[in-house]
Amino acid sequence: MEPKNKVFIATSLDGYIADKNGGIAWLDDIPEINTIDTGYETFTSQIDAMLMGRTTFETVLSFGIEWPYKKPVFVLSRTLTKVPQNLKGKVFLVNGTLKEVLQTIHNKGLYRLYIDGGKTIQSFLKQDLIDEIIITIIPTLLGGGLSLFGELSEKLQFECVSSKVYLDKIVQNRFVRKKV
Amino acid sequence: MEPKNKVFIATSLDGYIADKNGGIAWLDDIPEINTIDTGYETFTSQIDAMLMGRTTFETVLSFGIEWPYKKPVFVLSRTLTKVPQNLKGKVFLVNGTLKEVLQTIHNKGLYRLYIDGGKTIQSFLKQDLIDEIIITIIPTLLGGGLSLFGELSEKLQFECVSSKVYLDKIVQNRFVRKKV
Repeated sequence: MEPKNKVFIATSLDGYIADKNGGIAWLDDIPEINTIDTGYETFTSQIDAMLMGRTTFETVLSFGIEWPYKKPVFVLSRTLTKVPQNLKGKVFLVNGTLKEVLQTIHNKGLYRLYIDGGKTIQSFLKQDLIDEIIITIIPTLLGGGLSLFGELSEKLQFECVSSKVYLDKIVQNRFVRKKV
Repeated sequence: MEPKNKVFIATSLDGYIADKNGGIAWLDDIPEINTIDTGYETFTSQIDAMLMGRTTFETVLSFGIEWPYKKPVFVLSRTLTKVPQNLKGKVFLVNGTLKEVLQTIHNKGLYRLYIDGGKTIQSFLKQDLIDEIIITIIPTLLGGGLSLFGELSEKLQFECVSSKVYLDKIVQNRFVRKKV
């Protein structure tokens, strides 16, 4: 199976994934979004595993909710040494270069990966390791925050292959990397 | 007629309107875009006048092309004192607060305005004076440049009312300000 690294994320209209204080309450500016299917279940049914950074992992833990992921989750971290007891067998710590980490995951037979977390996504993009980005735009202008996209030394060409408006309010655009 | 201030602009996938060097050559990364109608003619047929900043005005002049606008163009500037001879009757200099400038233009019977230029758009958004934003995303990640959106002290809620994919590559999302 061909390895694929995909992103499925929500941003504000001005491209932020968190507000000026790191908060994500604005994701509920359009609360009806929680009543509809914006393709998340379908997306996650088509991936083999998830890879996220430590910050995102700790943010999810801080929610104090039941562990929300069905697929194996790999957490990139140089500092964590163990996972909480209740997440053993569900969460795996990895470190090394991104290519080494990917090799480790691929060696387990897991190829279609959901890449999550701002810093992790930016690291993958810097090395041109993202194949697909599905962005759901919550149409709020936050006016500042943590950007989804970061600095790149070389530009990267994608193509928007589909777009869907939900509730006459929210738009989801799907971009795939154009490799020539 | 109810005044409306609208934006019609292209950005990169990462939200820039110009690259790190201020250039816009990346707009041609998908050259086929120049062969199709992405609604610009329809949009401009529905506005009464254009309002842009001095920088955008001087950029357009620097192209050395025939003046491209059919509608009256108002140029916001505190420093320009006259317009080129060949643009008299087509270009008008204005200055003052944005509300004063809008009043000046409305007093001429011109209400539906196309607001253009990065700094000008940001100034209008800071004062919540934009009613509609049509963004055509050229799906290049530039990795740096001049952002369309800037800092805001208060967040602003828009709604995406329509979206269209062109050439299976480019997407145009239309956002309208939600006023409650």
